[in-house]
Amino acid sequence: MKEIYKDDSLTLHTDLYQINMVECYWADGIHDRKAVFEIFFRKLPFGNGYAIFAGLERIIEYLKNFRFTETDLAYLRELGYDEEFLNYLSSLRFTGSMYSVVEGEVVFANEPIVRIEAPLAEAQLIETALLNIINFQTLIATKASRIKQIVKEEAAAEFGARRAQEMDAAIWGARAAVIGGFESTSNVRAGKIFNIPVSGTHAHAFVQAYKNEYDAFKAYARRHKDCVFLVDTYNTLKSGVPNAIRVAKELEGQINFVGIRLDSGDIAFLSKEARRMLDEAGFTNTKIIASNNLDEYTILNLKAQGAKVDSWGIGTKLITAYDQPALGAVYKMVAIENELGEMEDTLKITSNAEKVTTPGLKRVFRIVNKENGKAEGDYITMANENPQEEKRLKMFHPVHTFISKFVTNFEARELHKQIIDEGAIVYESPSVMEMQQYAKESLELLWDEYKRSLNPEEYPVDLSQKCWDNKMQKIQEIRDAIENIE
Amino acid sequence: MKEIYKDDSLTLHTDLYQINMVECYWADGIHDRKAVFEIFFRKLPFGNGYAIFAGLERIIEYLKNFRFTETDLAYLRELGYDEEFLNYLSSLRFTGSMYSVVEGEVVFANEPIVRIEAPLAEAQLIETALLNIINFQTLIATKASRIKQIVKEEAAAEFGARRAQEMDAAIWGARAAVIGGFESTSNVRAGKIFNIPVSGTHAHAFVQAYKNEYDAFKAYARRHKDCVFLVDTYNTLKSGVPNAIRVAKELEGQINFVGIRLDSGDIAFLSKEARRMLDEAGFTNTKIIASNNLDEYTILNLKAQGAKVDSWGIGTKLITAYDQPALGAVYKMVAIENELGEMEDTLKITSNAEKVTTPGLKRVFRIVNKENGKAEGDYITMANENPQEEKRLKMFHPVHTFISKFVTNFEARELHKQIIDEGAIVYESPSVMEMQQYAKESLELLWDEYKRSLNPEEYPVDLSQKCWDNKMQKIQEIRDAIENIE
Repeated sequence: MKEIYKDDSLTLHTDLYQINMVECYWADGIHDRKAVFEIFFRKLPFGNGYAIFAGLERIIEYLKNFRFTETDLAYLRELGYDEEFLNYLSSLRFTGSMYSVVEGEVVFANEPIVRIEAPLAEAQLIETALLNIINFQTLIATKASRIKQIVKEEAAAEFGARRAQEMDAAIWGARAAVIGGFESTSNVRAGKIFNIPVSGTHAHAFVQAYKNEYDAFKAYARRHKDCVFLVDTYNTLKSGVPNAIRVAKELEGQINFVGIRLDSGDIAFLSKEARRMLDEAGFTNTKIIASNNLDEYTILNLKAQGAKVDSWGIGTKLITAYDQPALGAVYKMVAIENELGEMEDTLKITSNAEKVTTPGLKRVFRIVNKENGKAEGDYITMANENPQEEKRLKMFHPVHTFISKFVTNFEARELHKQIIDEGAIVYESPSVMEMQQYAKESLELLWDEYKRSLNPEEYPVDLSQKCWDNKMQKIQEIRDAIENIE
Repeated sequence: MKEIYKDDSLTLHTDLYQINMVECYWADGIHDRKAVFEIFFRKLPFGNGYAIFAGLERIIEYLKNFRFTETDLAYLRELGYDEEFLNYLSSLRFTGSMYSVVEGEVVFANEPIVRIEAPLAEAQLIETALLNIINFQTLIATKASRIKQIVKEEAAAEFGARRAQEMDAAIWGARAAVIGGFESTSNVRAGKIFNIPVSGTHAHAFVQAYKNEYDAFKAYARRHKDCVFLVDTYNTLKSGVPNAIRVAKELEGQINFVGIRLDSGDIAFLSKEARRMLDEAGFTNTKIIASNNLDEYTILNLKAQGAKVDSWGIGTKLITAYDQPALGAVYKMVAIENELGEMEDTLKITSNAEKVTTPGLKRVFRIVNKENGKAEGDYITMANENPQEEKRLKMFHPVHTFISKFVTNFEARELHKQIIDEGAIVYESPSVMEMQQYAKESLELLWDEYKRSLNPEEYPVDLSQKCWDNKMQKIQEIRDAIENIE
């Protein structure tokens, strides 16, 4: 490792090819042409029926601070880029506009969640960082929300700091977990930076540090009024729970015997036995907290077995999104200014049919039925359309176009807010707890069948007729051009 | 989010319970008792036969900078900790010693890879960060090495910056990938910070930014002498490869037509057809680079199908360790100073038999057979043992103890180096490329059956007789103590 750079910036958090491309744009004088890029993902993670968007606040910070520092430029010089180009980079700032759904918003596959309208070079350079941020934070917020659907009204705490994929993942993941509905995190730095609740009591090492378990619990209680004792260092039912009860009885009135924590063994069996022992000792309000490799599947199973757990600590499986550790959001050019100064829609075709993009600058609406307050689906239009003007909105499946319905008496809520206006930040992020509340309210718009964890219904994300026609036309144009090569 | 703290430190990258425990240690006056903790993992990831250790350099930096900053203390004050305790924390530095295997070392399950000997409070507070760093970096170095076993002599590039779990994972993951054997990364910031090779050419957006694919390739070639063209924006065989060949022919002598990149579709088929087209056009030295969701399994299959790929770009599956995104290394207390100032071995017993720890301060040796230069296994001893003194070393399985062998004519290489001596750093990290070389050499000590990706043999990690006896004795002592409770 070289020295830790004093002026370390995230501007070089990009793929080398972005810089190579920008070098060409600049050399060809097209770097300032206006380009439009959209971020979307193609498939919901975990087989879930929805995702919870997160990452926007981090992106705003990143774009605000976007500039190549002296050591950034020195490194690029080492790589062989010439002075004129480096000089151009040195004055580069983000001067474009950004539209985005807000954090906590419920989002779906194949709809634009962020739109960047910026000079081509700027839009190109920021791709890697934007995707990195959204991919991870949205993934974790979604996983947390999914777990919270099973946990329901009980408390869920994020415990993954030691298993997160390095430091940033630990803090941004903790924040995303809270957006997705978790009550707290064990991560102190995340608590400090994001002003979110922190929780935690003691570990096995604490019990080992004292002569015996009883002494350890006693020591904890001397210093902390609210006591949760970890009871599985030696033997949960023979030693841990009896020692916890003994200490709580000795100190009755002086401490709150808030709970015990089980971190190994058969949680279903142990929690039931521990509950019985606690109740018999008169501690009917003392909670049982479970941890140890939990996720929505194990929790659902523990509940089915009648486990007596009041609160859940969830680490590895949440913070790494263990069963699907990447979201796969992409950043695709949908329009670019041509040499005449007009915007032209662009498209990427590939051998994989589902990877064909939808061209043009678009808007996204959530169509809410006014009678029942539930969402009928999301509706993607070209920029100049407004579905609210329609009395009777035709919504059809973007692949199986014969699947369609007409919606009347609806409200079309536009999902994107303007975040940055030609370089100026025009949006202020709410607190993380407000984002959590927003996510809860957004989920209330969805029928339950979209929210169940197993085999949820597919929520409609439809294209307007104009949007669909435009896509088909562009595909045909490119096909024709390719045929002409032969 | 609150402001980004100017004095942001990683010291609060810890679980809240660590601080609660330390508060008790401090209140009870046992915070300075000497404690010994070991880091190990219980199971090799990915079904692999070995792991490659990484993360040490980051840990040294972290321990060097370990101190609670003003805003750290202000936050803890907000949480309700009292001034006397905060005052104690404010002067806390890491004054302990650290022993570790070096980065690039081949390591196995159930052997100590790091040992911390420090005042109890310090040792406790650093647990979360140390595990976070080792868990991720070792995981990725191991995944990279595993992929490299299949890729073999061909080039492998790390392409995962946009899918990594946030920013730190992207750069430290890129570094770990290089330690594990990758030739380069696309991540420019990782290249800058760690002085590792970077690579990359252009993306689909580049092709879309120009009037057509031919113009785009031409534009790239105007500015870059070494050209790799991405050929699948519209149609790989009908448009991409023909345009690449056309540009290369027109600019023959002016550019090096280094390669084409395939990023979608049937790589096996497309690479064979593209190879044929390139060869027929006379570009027999032009390489074919493949990317798109690759890992060791897809690469092995592509090779089996005779795919004509010379170089591999690997993103998501590597940088997130997709098939097992967490390592699960743990940090366990193995000894602590008692009230008489003597060291006492400690043990954690749980209902899960494989989670019982091995008590006491230990050493780890790699037993290398002098006749063939291959490792016979790793051998864990108590601190006062030296296996080199034995003529005939008995190695037996730590669970199935009847499985045993005698080794003669061996060299016992101690795996741990002292890294920190009572707060003073006494080790200097080599360059990342030297770590890569070290990993290569370490792997040469292993027979091939430990290195194959499917069902590798289990490499022996054995306890010395003394170590085993000590563990059994401790287990019995704790069992007896528990029986006495009843």
